[in-house]
Amino acid sequence: MIKAKVYITLKPSVLDPQGKVVMNTLHTLGHASVSEVRVSKFIEIKFDTDNEVEVRESLEKICDKVLANPNTEAYSYELETGN
Amino acid sequence: MIKAKVYITLKPSVLDPQGKVVMNTLHTLGHASVSEVRVSKFIEIKFDTDNEVEVRESLEKICDKVLANPNTEAYSYELETGN
Repeated sequence: MIKAKVYITLKPSVLDPQGKVVMNTLHTLGHASVSEVRVSKFIEIKFDTDNEVEVRESLEKICDKVLANPNTEAYSYELETGN
Repeated sequence: MIKAKVYITLKPSVLDPQGKVVMNTLHTLGHASVSEVRVSKFIEIKFDTDNEVEVRESLEKICDKVLANPNTEAYSYELETGN
């Protein structure tokens, strides 16, 4: 079994209105030292195989076609090999 | 400056319908070895301070009161001290 941790983040040049709202809320609650908030997605995917090459190939397609919007989002991932 | 990486994940006992939909989509697209998908939030917060104790105190409150729903979600975070 291979577990992939996939991070889908907005590209740095893209405005993050949700993060802005969270930041304003935190300021209102007195957390004055907060200077930036970015909200992203974190997706865990388990694969029933131990073939890392195959998993990486699948993941590239999955991120490109399903999980991330290539216009505004970037992705990265880590693999964990487990029992 | 301290950067916090916050992970808001559904508790293991809580069903993740969004993850289920993603998994079904991946099966339809031929990624048959995918056995589980869980969708979570990943939030980056920058603090304009180098006081780690203060940041940890803030983060506990922020996660408990703003970011996570304690009934269904768990949180964890890592701190990075930067320039």
